[in-house]
Amino acid sequence: MTQISKSLQEELIATAHALADAARPVTLAHFRDPKIKADNKLQGGFDPVTVADRGAETVMREVLARLRPDDGILGEEFPPVEGTSGFTWVLDPIDGTRSYISGTPTWGILVAVNHGAGPVYGLIDQPYIGERFCGGFGQAYLDGPLGRRALAVRDVRDLSDAVLFTTFPEIGTKAEGAAFRAVSARVKLTRYGLDCYAYGLVAAGQIDLVIESGLNAFDVQGPIAVIEAAGGIVTDWNGAPVHDGGQVLAAGSKLHAAALAILQTG
Amino acid sequence: MTQISKSLQEELIATAHALADAARPVTLAHFRDPKIKADNKLQGGFDPVTVADRGAETVMREVLARLRPDDGILGEEFPPVEGTSGFTWVLDPIDGTRSYISGTPTWGILVAVNHGAGPVYGLIDQPYIGERFCGGFGQAYLDGPLGRRALAVRDVRDLSDAVLFTTFPEIGTKAEGAAFRAVSARVKLTRYGLDCYAYGLVAAGQIDLVIESGLNAFDVQGPIAVIEAAGGIVTDWNGAPVHDGGQVLAAGSKLHAAALAILQTG
Repeated sequence: MTQISKSLQEELIATAHALADAARPVTLAHFRDPKIKADNKLQGGFDPVTVADRGAETVMREVLARLRPDDGILGEEFPPVEGTSGFTWVLDPIDGTRSYISGTPTWGILVAVNHGAGPVYGLIDQPYIGERFCGGFGQAYLDGPLGRRALAVRDVRDLSDAVLFTTFPEIGTKAEGAAFRAVSARVKLTRYGLDCYAYGLVAAGQIDLVIESGLNAFDVQGPIAVIEAAGGIVTDWNGAPVHDGGQVLAAGSKLHAAALAILQTG
Repeated sequence: MTQISKSLQEELIATAHALADAARPVTLAHFRDPKIKADNKLQGGFDPVTVADRGAETVMREVLARLRPDDGILGEEFPPVEGTSGFTWVLDPIDGTRSYISGTPTWGILVAVNHGAGPVYGLIDQPYIGERFCGGFGQAYLDGPLGRRALAVRDVRDLSDAVLFTTFPEIGTKAEGAAFRAVSARVKLTRYGLDCYAYGLVAAGQIDLVIESGLNAFDVQGPIAVIEAAGGIVTDWNGAPVHDGGQVLAAGSKLHAAALAILQTG
């Protein structure tokens, strides 16, 4: 990574938090809104998720126009913006739209900034709980209802001691599902349904593995930054960088190696 | 139901909230505690969940000894207490222990009070978020990060519009799993992993159906009180009362009937 001065680091950190701060109220304005709940649809028609998604990404882009106008932007809802600074912001205003429309508290705002490759700083923000997982530039902490706590990936000895999360039991293609289940068969406990929040729990040392497929860059760069800062590893199922999206494996080093061996042999 | 005077209703409501208030800090003292996380085990050995469970139920029993000494108690962790008043408190200090040890914010404290049959008042409390779903004696509301909101079950027209939750995809016996999947195949979206929190989301009109099996009385009486107060129906898979536990179906009336027809024919 190019050397980034301390003052620039602080500016990027402040910008990341300003982005999540701006997006929070927009996402909450539509979350669990009883007036629009009847229009919640996964396909077609008026979609309140899109309203919240687009509204939140719009305010984040306004923050960037003000604070970091020369940076690029890669967001879920609008076309990419080429920058001139070398830095690109990767934004998912609402990760976990199915979770959001179901009223569960485990969707999140994802913010990351990269310098051409993997992210150098990132956030996973859960507005309803008021939680923010933060990682990069030597920081790795969670702010939430219990105050500020350091994030540190745990690395249990063996898959048989591990807790594994993924979003859907119907993961990816047939081959991807089989590979996932081969790991799942070896762990102590498999749970479902958290979207980005599961990556926060890996960083917090509460769970051990997240395995997913079909992710986009904006789904994964925030989580990568947070988990790497907390001492964990996030790659694709072949052990290669995954900041452009795809099949994702997140864990501490021992379990990452153990799970990778299973995923690669299918 | 026996007539219960307004002043007695108020006393029971205040007691229910006092129980959840007492249990909250005990459950949070062990939640995500990094010092004990390495000892989190689903079977055998020292189990921090048991420490939190037992500690929370102990303080709740102390509250009852002070406020309602003549009532009976049915709790998960200690032997039942016979009362003389006709009222029984049904307590689950931590519903969703796998969720609790995984650090997710969707476990809960369940409190209900019954007068010999189904519950007359109940709470689903999520201490980490600071949310409390409350129902009975004409009340149906949620207190949480967005303030106080009325609870009202929605009742979408058809299963094809419905969101279904259950805790595990590996639900119950083979026959129970098949019956569940027959309903799941008909709905818009099936999600997993929320434990008691899913019943709160039914009451809040955010999701439409919860289907589970193998529940105990203390798992279900709080949810029954909250959902019934919000206009929904909770029965077993044959449409019979389920306050003693078993197979649970929770929904608004139209979807309840539609799902019941599928569950009964397998």
